[in-house]
Amino acid sequence: MENPIGRKRWAIAEGYIPSQSHGPEPETTSHETVSLLNASAQDAHVKIIIFFSDRDPAGPYSVVLSARRTKHLRFNDLQQPEPIPRDTDYASVVESDIPIVVQHARLDSRQSANALLSTVAYAELE
Amino acid sequence: MENPIGRKRWAIAEGYIPSQSHGPEPETTSHETVSLLNASAQDAHVKIIIFFSDRDPAGPYSVVLSARRTKHLRFNDLQQPEPIPRDTDYASVVESDIPIVVQHARLDSRQSANALLSTVAYAELE
Amino acid sequence: MENPIGRKRWAIAEGYIPSQSHGPEPETTSHETVSLLNASAQDAHVKIIIFFSDRDPAGPYSVVLSARRTKHLRFNDLQQPEPIPRDTDYASVVESDIPIVVQHARLDSRQSANALLSTVAYAELE
Amino acid sequence: MENPIGRKRWAIAEGYIPSQSHGPEPETTSHETVSLLNASAQDAHVKIIIFFSDRDPAGPYSVVLSARRTKHLRFNDLQQPEPIPRDTDYASVVESDIPIVVQHARLDSRQSANALLSTVAYAELE
Repeated sequence: MENPIGRKRWAIAEGYIPSQSHGPEPETTSHETVSLLNASAQDAHVKIIIFFSDRDPAGPYSVVLSARRTKHLRFNDLQQPEPIPRDTDYASVVESDIPIVVQHARLDSRQSANALLSTVAYAELE
Repeated sequence: MENPIGRKRWAIAEGYIPSQSHGPEPETTSHETVSLLNASAQDAHVKIIIFFSDRDPAGPYSVVLSARRTKHLRFNDLQQPEPIPRDTDYASVVESDIPIVVQHARLDSRQSANALLSTVAYAELE
Repeated sequence: MENPIGRKRWAIAEGYIPSQSHGPEPETTSHETVSLLNASAQDAHVKIIIFFSDRDPAGPYSVVLSARRTKHLRFNDLQQPEPIPRDTDYASVVESDIPIVVQHARLDSRQSANALLSTVAYAELE
Repeated sequence: MENPIGRKRWAIAEGYIPSQSHGPEPETTSHETVSLLNASAQDAHVKIIIFFSDRDPAGPYSVVLSARRTKHLRFNDLQQPEPIPRDTDYASVVESDIPIVVQHARLDSRQSANALLSTVAYAELE
């Protein structure tokens, strides 16, 4: 596991946090997650920019991802520089100073059963 | 965020808009979405072609995607040059004059609980 | 749309057709689909090989995918040279003589609500 | 099918095994799966490393994937060198000595209906 794995720039065109939930909190609160993996031996400094349909982008949101760690970040929990509005279409770009791997997921518990989606983010070749 | 992110040509082999829905409209109307992200500083001019199993393709459907904006486009809402039929298999190709990022999603609310799917589109290398 | 889009070799590591279903047939029969898109102006000749965990592969299953058409093929319906068993793990490789795009989906209706998954297949670079 | 298909290094940034399930076992036990496909004519020797948010990685978990076979491995079932904890965020890196294809899936049956997700893993170019 000496070689780094991943890319430095990722994009997720789809984003949407439902304002309503059903079921026990916080596991089944409707949420949107970006999962980050840093398999390397040094810390990664990550910046996330959020894009909207009708206003300028928000961010950057800064995250330190420690060496040999994963972080499953709920967009719901991002606060600085501003929270992400609910029931609003958005997209995101993730940039890191070293290669990481990025995956996107949503749990939608608006109705009585959970709905899940997940997809690997788009990885920009350098 | 000076460098463009994405590709100019994308394809989504799967498409299907269920004609039936369950739950409050329009959030939980069964729908199929193509999410477009233009992270660059200039507008993107996007054309979508829809392919079917038993007839010639429809389109192009033209969309302007403003600089530094995302657009989550419901295939349900495409009208010009023709609406997309329900309960019909289709596929799509998305072409842009500058690099963008494309993701595909469906909400299926035919039964009492939502089902979700999402996947990044196939990005053609140039 | 003069340039071909896609690749000639694709793989889907996950496959499983549940034997049980719930809801109206055939739309909500549990099924597994491979969606094929041929955006080019010539027909594609496609071969699918099915891999199992404990026996030699089945196939090839031969499909002609007409020019400028999509085909959403249910693995459930493959018959020649042999049907695909239910409740059995499998994987698939799709090979075409010209570039196509391949996506994988499943509708699981074993319980009272549908569950959906979809992902673009792995595209081999040439 | 003479040419190998796939890559030697894959990553899945998202992982989570719910501790609760609903419905008949073991088919609808909540589980997380990594599907491996070895389409080549020789055996693949695969190592999986599991990354966490707050401790050092676990593994490697060693798997032999026979020639021309698929294996749909439940993370739930990994025991050596240690089981994977439930209700815990994790990520994984899969390395093989020959090219394979890797896909990730989860069945979440915590609520009365199944939720499914699947996505192809991130494939590192060499």
